[in-house]
Amino acid sequence: MVIECVPNVSEGRRLDVIEKMATALRAVPDLRVLDVQSDAAHNRSVFTLAGSAAGLAAGIPVLFEQAIATIDLRTHQGEHPRMGAVDVVPFIPIDGVTMAECVALAKSVAADVAARFNLPLFLYEEASGNASRKNLEDIRRGEFEGLAAKMAQPAWAPDYGPAAPHPTAGASVIGARMPLIAYNINLATNRLDVAKKIASAIRMSSGGLRYVKAMGIPLEDRGIVQVSMNLTNYEKTPIFRVFDLVKREAERYGVSVLESEIVGLVPAAALRQSVEYYLQLEGFSGAQVLENKLRTPHEG
Amino acid sequence: MVIECVPNVSEGRRLDVIEKMATALRAVPDLRVLDVQSDAAHNRSVFTLAGSAAGLAAGIPVLFEQAIATIDLRTHQGEHPRMGAVDVVPFIPIDGVTMAECVALAKSVAADVAARFNLPLFLYEEASGNASRKNLEDIRRGEFEGLAAKMAQPAWAPDYGPAAPHPTAGASVIGARMPLIAYNINLATNRLDVAKKIASAIRMSSGGLRYVKAMGIPLEDRGIVQVSMNLTNYEKTPIFRVFDLVKREAERYGVSVLESEIVGLVPAAALRQSVEYYLQLEGFSGAQVLENKLRTPHEG
Repeated sequence: MVIECVPNVSEGRRLDVIEKMATALRAVPDLRVLDVQSDAAHNRSVFTLAGSAAGLAAGIPVLFEQAIATIDLRTHQGEHPRMGAVDVVPFIPIDGVTMAECVALAKSVAADVAARFNLPLFLYEEASGNASRKNLEDIRRGEFEGLAAKMAQPAWAPDYGPAAPHPTAGASVIGARMPLIAYNINLATNRLDVAKKIASAIRMSSGGLRYVKAMGIPLEDRGIVQVSMNLTNYEKTPIFRVFDLVKREAERYGVSVLESEIVGLVPAAALRQSVEYYLQLEGFSGAQVLENKLRTPHEG
Repeated sequence: MVIECVPNVSEGRRLDVIEKMATALRAVPDLRVLDVQSDAAHNRSVFTLAGSAAGLAAGIPVLFEQAIATIDLRTHQGEHPRMGAVDVVPFIPIDGVTMAECVALAKSVAADVAARFNLPLFLYEEASGNASRKNLEDIRRGEFEGLAAKMAQPAWAPDYGPAAPHPTAGASVIGARMPLIAYNINLATNRLDVAKKIASAIRMSSGGLRYVKAMGIPLEDRGIVQVSMNLTNYEKTPIFRVFDLVKREAERYGVSVLESEIVGLVPAAALRQSVEYYLQLEGFSGAQVLENKLRTPHEG
């Protein structure tokens, strides 16, 4: 079982503090620290962890303990919006684990952390049963500075923990979501209006595909434009459907797709589903990928 | 470094003999026995091994030693053509290794085995510098029974070892090749002539793509026909090109592609190249596949 977890912590300048958190996490069994990215301007660090449910259930409270002991949001400044010392903790199903299991993990970790540190916890995305409290931006709006007033409203009572913010660590958001895919399509034109119209056509917020966020932007050094996207659930809104729809929309403006790009990581299953679509492949499974077989401990 | 090796041994009935070979191979460091398939009608077993060059250089002579001690081709019978106790040994580059390195490994193992066991060895496929001695079927034609007469011809002097067959173990064929992909395309028709014409159009032997072997066959239980293929070098003749060409050829007969299928294993790179083609993906690498990142021992 592999669950990815990407906690965002409100400290991006004191690298000794971040390194101490990473060291503590590395000591937790069944948990691996794959990456740590700190941004001084945002004053924020992003940990990429992978592990079993047990490894993450043990590790995340360790991270909270360190963050609460070292971060004081009353004096924290940075460009990125935030409301907690540990700001947001998403659990992401990768291999041999369901979304339902990640939701259960998010809830049990949230309950545990709330009780241990007397900290308000909000559930989000798949872990939240409340449609108006699924979106991180909605929950975090007002940030740490507006949190006491916001939590005074009944609609913003936390899912776990006390009804008022922690004095220095604010409140945290924990949940479960699918892996994000950052996917861009470059158009063979410099017409920004075309990229913006296509982005508007394909994104959910203006009537497009359910799990697409999109905007049209210029790539000025190349004299072309881009439809820049986040795909938030590749199982339900697959890459190939996004690509084909953008290509079709571009045609009506007489514009060609120059190329597409995946930025950062992509689950193997998202690639497989596109191969299966274009090759009309039936009955294929990830177990047929040679490298997976070579990695299997089993000897036949 | 991962090299796959798929030795074929001329014994498929005495399973205790095969199991003893597998046990001996499992004791070799840097070598894994992924699979053993024995076929009684063919009287032949296929081992699937994976390891480093050092692991395979140590393991393959172990397999020869056991096979030569236990197999006597003078009394061997089976449906599958064969000329050696260990009949054929292909080395296949998988990860972090070049074809040139697999060719070098094939030659050094062949020289080693020839010297140790006084056995004639023929190089084939990428390891052979002789165009008329690349194809396994050409080298093996005449089988064990015709081998002495064949080797008496100067054109069939072996690459290593004595000029005459081993009395009980014949001669062996060692070489390097790309992974094979067994790829079939099913057509929405029962017209066998269409499947045969398309197979003829796309296979190398009748003027088609360089690394495609193809035949048209009926799938009688389903009332449809199939273009059944082996792709022998997916880097140079990619799956997507085969699919698109078959689809185009089918159109001229008014026939649709119903589906395609990959039988058995496929390298991840062969799937990636098809995704890259259909999505016009630029600058993508296998390192961006999330699962590969999760498996990396490095911590960032």
